[in-house]
Amino acid sequence: MDIDKLFTKSDLIPAIVTDTDGVVLMMAYMNKESLTKTIETRQTWFFSRSRNELWNKGATSGHIQEVAEIYSDCDDDTLLVKVKQTGSACHTGEYSCFFNKVI
Amino acid sequence: MDIDKLFTKSDLIPAIVTDTDGVVLMMAYMNKESLTKTIETRQTWFFSRSRNELWNKGATSGHIQEVAEIYSDCDDDTLLVKVKQTGSACHTGEYSCFFNKVI
Repeated sequence: MDIDKLFTKSDLIPAIVTDTDGVVLMMAYMNKESLTKTIETRQTWFFSRSRNELWNKGATSGHIQEVAEIYSDCDDDTLLVKVKQTGSACHTGEYSCFFNKVI
Repeated sequence: MDIDKLFTKSDLIPAIVTDTDGVVLMMAYMNKESLTKTIETRQTWFFSRSRNELWNKGATSGHIQEVAEIYSDCDDDTLLVKVKQTGSACHTGEYSCFFNKVI
């Protein structure tokens, strides 16, 4: 796939990350550069909106994500990234970031 | 949970929708009103950024989503909505919107 078409509407695209069993781990944003690095290195790279820089998930914690597959959605404005998660995805130590029950 | 805290950073929050087996179906945005309606009706309501209005998933297609559980993430700025999907989640007829393989 030509990844340029994913960034026609916006420079940033939300990326849903699941493990290879399908557990939803986290959501973060990618720009074209971080998606390119993700594809090249087979590890997840995101763009931090607050720090305005790329970050490699697990670079400091060791909790890296090895990329198995990436899909885009029907209108090419959201990504689904399937990974093999080392350790926990969440900085709190929880395996998944989605642990606050709303209902 | 007091849902007000989900909308302190932004009026819109991304909502990842999976079925109750964990298959990622789609991603759309909720504002406080659509999340409130989702909780009250136990069907998914989203906010359309292009049409600037609320929409009830399945209202025209019949492909409604019955809400089983909702979680927020560690920093309360993304939702995970687990649903029982009637028919297909994607307007193309695919069960999930994530069918374009990037890698």
